[in-house]
Amino acid sequence: MQKYVRRAVLDLKAYEVNEINCKIKLDANENVSREDGLNRYPDNLAKELITALSEKTGLRTSELIVGNGSSELIELVMKTFLEAGEYVVSLEPSFSMYRIFTTIYNGKYKGFQLKDNQYFDVDEFIEMINEMNVKLVILSNPNNPTATMISKEDIGKIVEKSDAIVVIDEAYIDFTSGSVIKWINKYKNLIVLRTFSKAFGLAGIRLGYLASDSNTLEFIKRVKSPYNVGTITQEIGLNALRDHHELEKNIEFIKSERTRVWKALDISGKEPIPSNANFILFKSKKGLYEFLINKDILVRKFEGNLENYLRVTIGTKEENDMFLSKIEEFEDEKN
Amino acid sequence: MQKYVRRAVLDLKAYEVNEINCKIKLDANENVSREDGLNRYPDNLAKELITALSEKTGLRTSELIVGNGSSELIELVMKTFLEAGEYVVSLEPSFSMYRIFTTIYNGKYKGFQLKDNQYFDVDEFIEMINEMNVKLVILSNPNNPTATMISKEDIGKIVEKSDAIVVIDEAYIDFTSGSVIKWINKYKNLIVLRTFSKAFGLAGIRLGYLASDSNTLEFIKRVKSPYNVGTITQEIGLNALRDHHELEKNIEFIKSERTRVWKALDISGKEPIPSNANFILFKSKKGLYEFLINKDILVRKFEGNLENYLRVTIGTKEENDMFLSKIEEFEDEKN
Repeated sequence: MQKYVRRAVLDLKAYEVNEINCKIKLDANENVSREDGLNRYPDNLAKELITALSEKTGLRTSELIVGNGSSELIELVMKTFLEAGEYVVSLEPSFSMYRIFTTIYNGKYKGFQLKDNQYFDVDEFIEMINEMNVKLVILSNPNNPTATMISKEDIGKIVEKSDAIVVIDEAYIDFTSGSVIKWINKYKNLIVLRTFSKAFGLAGIRLGYLASDSNTLEFIKRVKSPYNVGTITQEIGLNALRDHHELEKNIEFIKSERTRVWKALDISGKEPIPSNANFILFKSKKGLYEFLINKDILVRKFEGNLENYLRVTIGTKEENDMFLSKIEEFEDEKN
Repeated sequence: MQKYVRRAVLDLKAYEVNEINCKIKLDANENVSREDGLNRYPDNLAKELITALSEKTGLRTSELIVGNGSSELIELVMKTFLEAGEYVVSLEPSFSMYRIFTTIYNGKYKGFQLKDNQYFDVDEFIEMINEMNVKLVILSNPNNPTATMISKEDIGKIVEKSDAIVVIDEAYIDFTSGSVIKWINKYKNLIVLRTFSKAFGLAGIRLGYLASDSNTLEFIKRVKSPYNVGTITQEIGLNALRDHHELEKNIEFIKSERTRVWKALDISGKEPIPSNANFILFKSKKGLYEFLINKDILVRKFEGNLENYLRVTIGTKEENDMFLSKIEEFEDEKN
């Protein structure tokens, strides 16, 4: 694994957080004042949360780290591995932060075009990344904003047939199947990202986790800021993990609404792309985005190759009904 | 200001968060499930909190940004300005994360040695940074771990007589006077950092803010991750700002205890360095650190030039009494 790590990180002596426990704690320049305990720095290693994540995923605690949303985790990966000028490859279209982070971390970015914005040719992809000597592959799976999936078989091929570090961003994986998180034990060049922002419904707290081979993780930990995830965030994450039932009920609801919304969009001629996530990408006519805003409904628009598409998140039953009825209203007004 | 900004950042098109408000919000792939609102992403610009900080500091909202503790803010500064191989200078000794972040962001780090670990020669410092063509100066003021201050006069000299960006990390400034935060209007190369971890006693939530000229801040905002500070963190920060009285009472208490602990250490021959912060650096004999741990008291030890020193945080009256009595006990046992 070491061969992938940046020179600066190989030599880096990370900040050491003292894990000695004493009753009188006068080592960290903390304040004395608060009874809620928030005057103390959070647990640097988020041990309780990591233990709960270990139970949930079946991975070892040494294979997991938490961060402020997937954003911080993507940054940790780039800080650890990406030397200036090295290539990062993702899909086109995909989550735009991959390009932005690559630029910030001095890498070169290339988006591999999905055919018709949805079909993925794995052999062509592998050929490209090998020819380009790509350092990092980042695949949002299911992919945002298309909601399409790359199969486990294809991911296996990419990890095996390339010398890149392959990051699978599974932000939306709970709305489908096909997680490769268990494979981190098999592939040292595989890193998997997860978030509490989507299925767990906790976008407001900014919490995500990263799974990788424990040797890899030792290097990633070197570039992590001390105390990166706050105490309350750790607690809320822990509580959310305990409530399996609520999570599963919610996922089932979203999947069922997704089917309903997708069918309605299909019948309406919007050519929705089959969705594996909690959103749907569909063909839009000029003016629909603004029309919906006027009806107090905000969806997502894009530029470039996707300028004729809109992305809608699956909402409550009432929100979805309203969205679908306004779509029809727009059509009626146009005709 | 532009001349300081990294090439990659000058061209960077940052992630755009849509600030349109609609009643039905189906644009951000958020979940539908939670009544507490945490399913929504936080306010990307933390507008309410920034407004409150603007009132507190007397600065414009366009001159302020919040982050996950000072750590994220230091990283934002490096991401914006530091090209590979450029120099970052701080003091020796100072907060060790300055060196670590510099390494991660491919810079070269140099610590300017304080005479006897406390006295600062400003002219020598300016000569050095100009000779080295330093890009970033980061000064913890009061300085951690010495608790010493650089005067406003000296900071003015540094900002005026050098072509570096000067970051003043005022994490501990509330325990003394001498803030230069208002000077960001006068000096375009000045950046000031503040935190909620010390005087506000909120280390557990990870919240800090950065003040700079608004043009500078536009570039810094480009490298900030979207939704970087969570909703609850923003709320707790806002509430803390409203409670002036509690804050001031607490600061007065710490200052008064600081005087008491300092005098006791002085009488005991520990040569404590005069403190402007909520901690004191003092001379230690071999074995004292471990002796205190055995008595359930944790203080901070260091390596290198500071191996004969310990740093103690000002605690509650009872904690300080216990610390001082154990120090005496150690002396008695040695004699």
